[in-house]
Amino acid sequence: MEDGMELEEAPKDSVQESADPGEPQLPSEFEKLYKACEDTPDDFNAWVTLLQYVEQENFLVAARKSFDMFFLRYPYCYGYWKKYADLEKKHGNIQVAEEVYRRGLQAIPLSVDLWLHYLTFIKENSDLTDPETEGRIRASYEHAVLAAGTDFRSDRLWEAFITWETEQQKLANVTAIYDRILGIPTQLYSQHFQKFKDHVQNNHPRYFLSEEEFVQLRVELSKSSLSAMVGEDGEPSVAQEELPPGLEPITEIENMRHKVIESRQEVFNHNEHEVSKRWAFEEGIKRPYFHVKALEKTQLNNWREYLEFEIENGTPERVVVLFERCLIACALYEEFWIKYAKYLEGFSTDGVRHVFKKACTIHLPKKPSIHVMWAAFEEQQGNIEEAQRILKFLEEAIPGLALVRLRRVSLERRRGNMEGAEALLREAMESAKSSVEMSFYAVKLARHLIKVQRSLSKAKKVLLEAIEKDQTSSKLYLNLLELEFSEGVQQNEAEILACFDRALRSSMPLESRITFSQRKVEFLEDFGSDINVLVAAYEEQQKLQKESESLKRKAENGYDRCVEPSLRSRRSTSTCVTL
Amino acid sequence: MEDGMELEEAPKDSVQESADPGEPQLPSEFEKLYKACEDTPDDFNAWVTLLQYVEQENFLVAARKSFDMFFLRYPYCYGYWKKYADLEKKHGNIQVAEEVYRRGLQAIPLSVDLWLHYLTFIKENSDLTDPETEGRIRASYEHAVLAAGTDFRSDRLWEAFITWETEQQKLANVTAIYDRILGIPTQLYSQHFQKFKDHVQNNHPRYFLSEEEFVQLRVELSKSSLSAMVGEDGEPSVAQEELPPGLEPITEIENMRHKVIESRQEVFNHNEHEVSKRWAFEEGIKRPYFHVKALEKTQLNNWREYLEFEIENGTPERVVVLFERCLIACALYEEFWIKYAKYLEGFSTDGVRHVFKKACTIHLPKKPSIHVMWAAFEEQQGNIEEAQRILKFLEEAIPGLALVRLRRVSLERRRGNMEGAEALLREAMESAKSSVEMSFYAVKLARHLIKVQRSLSKAKKVLLEAIEKDQTSSKLYLNLLELEFSEGVQQNEAEILACFDRALRSSMPLESRITFSQRKVEFLEDFGSDINVLVAAYEEQQKLQKESESLKRKAENGYDRCVEPSLRSRRSTSTCVTL
Repeated sequence: MEDGMELEEAPKDSVQESADPGEPQLPSEFEKLYKACEDTPDDFNAWVTLLQYVEQENFLVAARKSFDMFFLRYPYCYGYWKKYADLEKKHGNIQVAEEVYRRGLQAIPLSVDLWLHYLTFIKENSDLTDPETEGRIRASYEHAVLAAGTDFRSDRLWEAFITWETEQQKLANVTAIYDRILGIPTQLYSQHFQKFKDHVQNNHPRYFLSEEEFVQLRVELSKSSLSAMVGEDGEPSVAQEELPPGLEPITEIENMRHKVIESRQEVFNHNEHEVSKRWAFEEGIKRPYFHVKALEKTQLNNWREYLEFEIENGTPERVVVLFERCLIACALYEEFWIKYAKYLEGFSTDGVRHVFKKACTIHLPKKPSIHVMWAAFEEQQGNIEEAQRILKFLEEAIPGLALVRLRRVSLERRRGNMEGAEALLREAMESAKSSVEMSFYAVKLARHLIKVQRSLSKAKKVLLEAIEKDQTSSKLYLNLLELEFSEGVQQNEAEILACFDRALRSSMPLESRITFSQRKVEFLEDFGSDINVLVAAYEEQQKLQKESESLKRKAENGYDRCVEPSLRSRRSTSTCVTL
Repeated sequence: MEDGMELEEAPKDSVQESADPGEPQLPSEFEKLYKACEDTPDDFNAWVTLLQYVEQENFLVAARKSFDMFFLRYPYCYGYWKKYADLEKKHGNIQVAEEVYRRGLQAIPLSVDLWLHYLTFIKENSDLTDPETEGRIRASYEHAVLAAGTDFRSDRLWEAFITWETEQQKLANVTAIYDRILGIPTQLYSQHFQKFKDHVQNNHPRYFLSEEEFVQLRVELSKSSLSAMVGEDGEPSVAQEELPPGLEPITEIENMRHKVIESRQEVFNHNEHEVSKRWAFEEGIKRPYFHVKALEKTQLNNWREYLEFEIENGTPERVVVLFERCLIACALYEEFWIKYAKYLEGFSTDGVRHVFKKACTIHLPKKPSIHVMWAAFEEQQGNIEEAQRILKFLEEAIPGLALVRLRRVSLERRRGNMEGAEALLREAMESAKSSVEMSFYAVKLARHLIKVQRSLSKAKKVLLEAIEKDQTSSKLYLNLLELEFSEGVQQNEAEILACFDRALRSSMPLESRITFSQRKVEFLEDFGSDINVLVAAYEEQQKLQKESESLKRKAENGYDRCVEPSLRSRRSTSTCVTL
């Protein structure tokens, strides 16, 4: 064996290593990064690494797989939607790129940035010679402001829309847009009004007004100038002759401009008032976008208070938009999802379901409370199987949560499936990770058997077997005691005392045994038949108490002081006076 | 009414005040001091003042009344027995004085000082011409050493006895006394042996030995000197002629002295060993006499350890003497009385009863534990009426102790008097000093009615009426819940929920209501029939929790920090996960 055989074998290995020289290096590195994300989807940095890698390597199949998987979990990262679309575009897949944008905008319709990227993309990739292009682009702008235009910070979108319509020389459209934005509380509300006034001053009413408004205004103005001529109480006796178009006097144009601005002034004033009420809240939003990092407590409070304010003062539409904005910034806080679902309860069952589903399946796949609420909601709607599915799914995602298992049990119980409830509890006992957990479920199962199935003997068996496995759980002994008590304190005295003695002989900590000893004395005082047993129990208790005191004294390490006889006496009786 | 009628009435009063001018001043001051002692018998200083007063004023009737009453409470104050006897003697009542000494010695037979005073008194007041006097005095010494002579500190008594017998020139008696004291572990054990040796050296064996011992010793010595003359294997062939008395050779006397001391040496060695085992304990007894002031902790520990040592190593007689000594120094510590009673259990029922009676009626009239033990002891002996009497007496001495009332209740219950038990609990409820106390007894009564009398309706009435009076006792609600539970969680769901809601609407502290709210959620999870009710209860609980958290936040006064989403979530679910 030491005669050189190793040298003979070595070449074989090197032959094997270079056996598949044609296998590409890229996928192996990719698979590694991809697997890391699959294994720890909560690790945002792993995703960032993966997406950077596929972007740099420009490996389309891997990139698609990565982005698609990423967005299942983090659809609110609008920047990555753009990166994804850019990648497709780079590969010449314009249609696919547009589809990516559409998916992104469906996922995060409030993202002004994503809308602006999308609109730029649309305009760059449109055939300007096509007569339908302008209409299609306008429809996209329209879509964008409908989706995101009520956001307090949507000004850039509105401005882009105005700029574009101005470029198309559709000044009446521009006025129509101003008429919308002037009524929406946004950050730059004041600037919009200023620009609107410039727009009115720098253009002729014939162009910046719609035909209807222009005609109506002229009629109004001519009526009022006529009435000014005949006096306040006079009647217009002669119809004023209409001047040919383009020959209106300057004063009339100025009057029209004045009228146009005046009529918007009121809207502006009202809007300014609305803005002022929300200004502080909006100032408090320091991070309106999504991020995996925790938000500061003050920002969370700001969201809470802002939502409360809007629920009390705003329209349902405004409330919903605010919730949607909040749930971008606070997507990882189940509190806000729950608040949203609760708010929608009064309006729409489907809305509530949608919120729960979005929260649980996308953003908070491992948050128990909201899953349990969703399941309760579906159960309330009569969708028992959906409720079961939700809870089962959650339990698979995060096993071992008592909250979830107990809800599964109670769901089965409520639908009358007592065997199912019992089986779930037994399974939980058997798969418990610790004796504390096992005992917890044993107690639940025993109580279920006693109170629901009314089988004391089965319950007793469960508790005794659990005690075999976990000698130190005072809850097990307590429940066994309660069971024995329920069969009558007088008839069942021997069994009750046996249960006390089982606890006292157990390996529970001394302090717990003292408590059971005190309970035994109290039981005998209240219900026992024999003074001798009571006296013996009292002495047993005093002995344990002394044991504990001597341990404490040892711990105090010989601390020496005078003790009043009266104090001593009070201490020695205190265990018996349970008042 | 304002016309001077008041002036007419005034003289009447002054006439009345001076109506008994002949009444003696002495008793009035005395009555004042005496009443102070009657009112606060625990106030030792009041007694000291009273006794000083009657002694100074030399007012025999008042003194007798005072001393007699004082000794009912403080029989261990040996100095006052002497003062009492001196007072009687001063008034020429020699017989009465002797009777006082006898009473004192019966009360505190271990008092070496009192025995010495008594013996001095006896000797001073004996008719020395009476031939029976010597015998009577000897009998008194004998009585004294029998009573107190095994005390470690009884040396002065033994010495006095020896001195007296020496004065009577009864040297053989002196030897007999030495033979006793040399076998008793006392403080001056070594000195006794030294003095004994002097006694042997300075006197002739014929006088300091009993006739029997003297003769026996001479026979032994002559045998051995003969055998020395004939050699070890020889036989005495010739009977040695006896020398006439007084003519024994010097060597024989020295041999006898040597033999006498030698035979005591072994006893002394053994005794020295016994003394050495107890020396440290005896050193630790700094205050062997009675005093109302508390003992230091180290002295109490010393008594505990000494008693344990003697119980393990000493004879029952020694143990009893040590207990009696201990219970002079520690008469106000019920712990030692209880230990003594427990020790005697194995020997004598009458002994146990005597200890309990002495402790409870003389030294510790207001210590509950030992009274309750005494009553239990009498009940164990079948003396139910005595047990009742003891507990009733104690309750009159210190009213309001739950320990005592509950034992009275359970005593009635054990003897089958359920109405009596119920009546005692109702009376305790009605005369309760606080709502906490009332609720405590209401719970006890309800449990008695449920478990013993099996009347749920009566129990429910008791609890509901108690809740009317005490809205804030969580125990009342808990017991009402338990009662409702016992009627079946499914059949009785509405009543159970009503009970929860009663608790939640009550004026209990917020934290208690939160606990009930959590219990309600747990009940509905485990046994409730309706998911809607469960969801509503959970929301109700969350609301209370938030209320509490916001109060806490206010208390924290705006402390601002980052909160991880995961942490928040954990907190919000923690109330539901009761694992």
